[in-house]
Amino acid sequence: MGLLKLGMVGGGQGAFIGGVHRMAARLDGRWELVAGSFSSEPVRAHASATEIGVSADRSYGDFREMARVEAMREDGIDAVSIVTPNHLHAPIAQAFLSAGIHVICDKPMTATLEQATNLVKVAKSSKASFFLTHNYTGYPMIRQAKKMVTDGLLGDLRIVQANYLQDWLSEPQGASNKQAAWRTDATQSGAGAIGDIGTHAYNLASFVTGLRALSVSAGLRSHQANMTVDDDARVALELENGARGQIWASQVAIGNENNLSLEVYGTKASLRWSQEAANVLIFTEIGKAPQFYTRGGAMTGPEAAAVTRVPAGHPEGYLEAFATIYREAADEINGTLSLDRIGLEAGLDGMKFVDACQRSSRDGSAWVEM
Amino acid sequence: MGLLKLGMVGGGQGAFIGGVHRMAARLDGRWELVAGSFSSEPVRAHASATEIGVSADRSYGDFREMARVEAMREDGIDAVSIVTPNHLHAPIAQAFLSAGIHVICDKPMTATLEQATNLVKVAKSSKASFFLTHNYTGYPMIRQAKKMVTDGLLGDLRIVQANYLQDWLSEPQGASNKQAAWRTDATQSGAGAIGDIGTHAYNLASFVTGLRALSVSAGLRSHQANMTVDDDARVALELENGARGQIWASQVAIGNENNLSLEVYGTKASLRWSQEAANVLIFTEIGKAPQFYTRGGAMTGPEAAAVTRVPAGHPEGYLEAFATIYREAADEINGTLSLDRIGLEAGLDGMKFVDACQRSSRDGSAWVEM
Amino acid sequence: MGLLKLGMVGGGQGAFIGGVHRMAARLDGRWELVAGSFSSEPVRAHASATEIGVSADRSYGDFREMARVEAMREDGIDAVSIVTPNHLHAPIAQAFLSAGIHVICDKPMTATLEQATNLVKVAKSSKASFFLTHNYTGYPMIRQAKKMVTDGLLGDLRIVQANYLQDWLSEPQGASNKQAAWRTDATQSGAGAIGDIGTHAYNLASFVTGLRALSVSAGLRSHQANMTVDDDARVALELENGARGQIWASQVAIGNENNLSLEVYGTKASLRWSQEAANVLIFTEIGKAPQFYTRGGAMTGPEAAAVTRVPAGHPEGYLEAFATIYREAADEINGTLSLDRIGLEAGLDGMKFVDACQRSSRDGSAWVEM
Amino acid sequence: MGLLKLGMVGGGQGAFIGGVHRMAARLDGRWELVAGSFSSEPVRAHASATEIGVSADRSYGDFREMARVEAMREDGIDAVSIVTPNHLHAPIAQAFLSAGIHVICDKPMTATLEQATNLVKVAKSSKASFFLTHNYTGYPMIRQAKKMVTDGLLGDLRIVQANYLQDWLSEPQGASNKQAAWRTDATQSGAGAIGDIGTHAYNLASFVTGLRALSVSAGLRSHQANMTVDDDARVALELENGARGQIWASQVAIGNENNLSLEVYGTKASLRWSQEAANVLIFTEIGKAPQFYTRGGAMTGPEAAAVTRVPAGHPEGYLEAFATIYREAADEINGTLSLDRIGLEAGLDGMKFVDACQRSSRDGSAWVEM
Repeated sequence: MGLLKLGMVGGGQGAFIGGVHRMAARLDGRWELVAGSFSSEPVRAHASATEIGVSADRSYGDFREMARVEAMREDGIDAVSIVTPNHLHAPIAQAFLSAGIHVICDKPMTATLEQATNLVKVAKSSKASFFLTHNYTGYPMIRQAKKMVTDGLLGDLRIVQANYLQDWLSEPQGASNKQAAWRTDATQSGAGAIGDIGTHAYNLASFVTGLRALSVSAGLRSHQANMTVDDDARVALELENGARGQIWASQVAIGNENNLSLEVYGTKASLRWSQEAANVLIFTEIGKAPQFYTRGGAMTGPEAAAVTRVPAGHPEGYLEAFATIYREAADEINGTLSLDRIGLEAGLDGMKFVDACQRSSRDGSAWVEM
Repeated sequence: MGLLKLGMVGGGQGAFIGGVHRMAARLDGRWELVAGSFSSEPVRAHASATEIGVSADRSYGDFREMARVEAMREDGIDAVSIVTPNHLHAPIAQAFLSAGIHVICDKPMTATLEQATNLVKVAKSSKASFFLTHNYTGYPMIRQAKKMVTDGLLGDLRIVQANYLQDWLSEPQGASNKQAAWRTDATQSGAGAIGDIGTHAYNLASFVTGLRALSVSAGLRSHQANMTVDDDARVALELENGARGQIWASQVAIGNENNLSLEVYGTKASLRWSQEAANVLIFTEIGKAPQFYTRGGAMTGPEAAAVTRVPAGHPEGYLEAFATIYREAADEINGTLSLDRIGLEAGLDGMKFVDACQRSSRDGSAWVEM
Repeated sequence: MGLLKLGMVGGGQGAFIGGVHRMAARLDGRWELVAGSFSSEPVRAHASATEIGVSADRSYGDFREMARVEAMREDGIDAVSIVTPNHLHAPIAQAFLSAGIHVICDKPMTATLEQATNLVKVAKSSKASFFLTHNYTGYPMIRQAKKMVTDGLLGDLRIVQANYLQDWLSEPQGASNKQAAWRTDATQSGAGAIGDIGTHAYNLASFVTGLRALSVSAGLRSHQANMTVDDDARVALELENGARGQIWASQVAIGNENNLSLEVYGTKASLRWSQEAANVLIFTEIGKAPQFYTRGGAMTGPEAAAVTRVPAGHPEGYLEAFATIYREAADEINGTLSLDRIGLEAGLDGMKFVDACQRSSRDGSAWVEM
Repeated sequence: MGLLKLGMVGGGQGAFIGGVHRMAARLDGRWELVAGSFSSEPVRAHASATEIGVSADRSYGDFREMARVEAMREDGIDAVSIVTPNHLHAPIAQAFLSAGIHVICDKPMTATLEQATNLVKVAKSSKASFFLTHNYTGYPMIRQAKKMVTDGLLGDLRIVQANYLQDWLSEPQGASNKQAAWRTDATQSGAGAIGDIGTHAYNLASFVTGLRALSVSAGLRSHQANMTVDDDARVALELENGARGQIWASQVAIGNENNLSLEVYGTKASLRWSQEAANVLIFTEIGKAPQFYTRGGAMTGPEAAAVTRVPAGHPEGYLEAFATIYREAADEINGTLSLDRIGLEAGLDGMKFVDACQRSSRDGSAWVEM
């Protein structure tokens, strides 16, 4: 089976997540990057293309032109990766989906719920698929956790706690920090911590438990003067099954680099996992000793094994989990795996979550429906 | 300096915390236990006295008689430890305080806010002191943390997170579990997880930061049928300085034995501590590597050293921290240390906290003032 | 049952381990300290007695006089604690044993193997018992480990690794450091790291596995100029059952405070334990996930429970383990527990170990019999 | 700059390390795999080629033919990866080096010291380079450690401890386990644990400290009947600067998956690192608190940053470290980096280490020179 052809919008010089997508796409040998519109500034776009190794004739200054031209080429791209600031996700995704090109979009799905709702409509009317890089769901021990919950090993779920703590916005960032610039600008990002990392935490909790939130009570806060978005968010959740959840997302928690963690408590057992020690899943049955299940270890089942590359004790990390999202997108496009609109639904649910949190927070943490 | 004489109310056969108080009182050689009313059932009371080594003539069937008789004896007790269910704390404390005998009371101060308010009045009119065993404040690294916050090493405080997770009520407990019986009976305990362990978490946060809560938004829940108190409590706090806090206290979090943890985030640095690894305090300054300060280690100052017994690397635990409360009570009674009504104020503040959480939870997690 | 009466030799002002013995003796309420010869300097001895609370008439300037007088008193001491430098252990122990007074001696048993051999003879001809404070064997999870090995849960033992790492001799210590002064003086200590902490590590390995070493290959080294004893020792062991062991004891391993650890590998399972996280024992069966057994936890059996004071999650530490040695000595003296000369045999075996390591090291790490 | 062309010998169906090399080669986008001799059985070789995506005309049944043909092709491979059992490394490497094709060889360099010596001669007379995948040296925090040692932050080195513990040979492996089959067959592997993982540990210690061993005292043992190689190896080392080292490599240590760890102690500070938590390096200066340096963190310098792909808190693992070896080989071939025969020297030193350990062990752990 030949390599799938990939294009990219965004991710040029000075960007962060574009490089991650490219490594993730390469790792499992299913994609080759052949086209791109790496910047909205043409000079920077073409310089980036050269650096990245995309030939000049497939370096575009405009994403709409790229969608049009690539759709017509015999050797046109199979899919496009969207790695721009959030507010551009929707128009770019819609352009490529309308052109019949699959979309692999960074999270959150869009900057606003309205954009998300529109994007879903466009996506449903397209024959192309929409994938969202909720990359933390690619970790093998998260697959293991989901399977154990599904199998009922935890009993009825009672409590779900997901924290995502960072510290990179603890101090004001200078204008030269491009990441900070757009991520803390409401017009580009749509939301702060709640959108940038809170959606990851909510998605992870929802992915593992199979439960969505029905209502939220949230407190969003910013610790920097003149910041238009939140940098610290606390959310209480009522989940579908009557369980309760809680999410804490912060970008001012000094000493936390990328500390995403998940705890799921049921009537029979619990699971605990931390992204910075991603190869371990702690499983505790009531009245038993905690067991440390490991990626590749004897107790870990086929769901985790399917997304595992190297043996136990040889740690896999962030890029491997991200690569799994790319591998599975390829497999779905190739027809060997069915993910069934998972990106679309999770993406929309994530934007409903952000929107509900913002409404609740404006209303004194009142409980609001999603 | 001779040993101080101690009495005890409660703590007979089948009890848990009474034995802890006795070991804590013994460890530093400042107290001898000479009297007790170990049970409200006289037969059990006297059997316990014999077992504990208290002579028959100082074993009482009734705490009021004990207060009266001991107050008159030339060799009467200097202080009494109260280790009964919560609803008895107030009447017993009042009886001894009125008799001029110092009181060392287990937490929470009382079962209700009304009892606490009355107790404070009685205590303030007594020449005797009231001590509350907020034993976790006795840990050396907690003293170190308090000092570092006070010294401004964290800058302005932004976020305080205190969790206290247990799992012993994950399943219904049989009637033979005396601990469960009274702790889950509202008429005896006054509150569930929020009172039993939530007050510890709140007190610890408040002790270290020097901040009290002004208002709370709480959700209390019970996971067992017919339980009259909560077993899982989530509380958001607005603190005096504008910072926010959060407390999660749970008794149904399978896999957590006695997992009390504290995180304090400021503008310049953070502190993280966990009771189950109590000899370590993680200090992270912005833009620096986390440092693991240890009890007895080179970076740990005189406040911690004052309550440290053995060198670094020789772990001190729960009993040592508890013993520090007893040692400091003795030192205050002996006039060599001034704690200045700390137990009284913290005890009352704790009951306001419980009361506010209960009111907020009944009102759909509305923000209520303490 | 009344308190047993305890005397002490050594442990006056400026000492370390004497205070530990006193706290350990107090914790469980089985001993009262009533007599002492706290220093070989009479002025210091009596000042220490006052400070410690021993009455002047039972403060002795000479241990031989103390043994003689106490043996004649009706209310004389039941046992004496020996907490002097190593070279004095033997003469003091012999004086008290000969007087029919039980001995609780700090480790190592003596400064030389010859002293140990003589002491054993004296002890065997005395009706009094000899206890050695191999305090690390008092940890509940070490009792649990011993039981699991004895029950065959590990299968046949293959490998035993015990490390004891400290860093307090990484730099030259001034003359004012009394601990360093005698511990690094061969005439007082008899050995350096190998005797001071290596014997602990060897004893712990031997206690848990039930195996003694038959021969050793050792390399002892000193990293300070003019030091007459080792500060870093590596020992390979051949054990009774054909398994191999290894011990690494160091006092120059910067960053290690009191890092004693034990790993036992068998054909069916392994155990791992670390003193600085003493409440946990990691048990891994072949082809299974590691299980974290905890002190007081559901999987921990009666051997550990018998020496446990507080519930799971309420950490017990160094003093509690030390107190267990005192409690068990009391119980043997009271006839409620039979330890059966365990201190004597372990003490002699420890001195054979030190002697063999010193011989091997002098002979280029040649294998020598113990 | 275009992609370099890579061939591979070994690594077909049923192999382990071949797939690792392919992912490592892909991750950074510097290599494309275009040719291979994936098995010595032609049918399996060609089936593997198809699976891997190598075209039939560049799938070879014989490595000598592959070297000959590829050397003549205009678009011939720049380098070949050797991922066969150890005894084939030398003949294959010599064939390609003689043909002027660069070699990237899995460790250990060869099966015997004699082979290694010959290989070095051939390599030195070739214009092509020889790279050895001592992949653990690719970890960013290992680069950081090496730099800190070089900069003198540890002072004079005293002790180096490197352990490499696994458990996969704890039980006899069936004939169907291809990995076990050749790795435990002396004629194919040349050595057991000491060669397979002991060389990694020795190399890591040597890489970080810049020190080689002068002499060793080793004990090799096998725990399975009829096994011709060791599965547990203990080695004491005398290092160039007078420091001492110790290596413990085991494949029967149940509960250890791939537990490679390194500790380096100097006169001023220490470093500790563990492969299973590879993103952290613990640095402790004498009299200071341990600091946890992190990959990508503020305290980590340019040497680590140069081989870092994603920000702090986004863990990188085994494949990323392995990919760094491939990236640096490409950079040396492209002339943008000078590694200067590092593979050759380290490979030969590793084989001297294995040979010396085997001689010492046969001679009762006598000290032998390397």
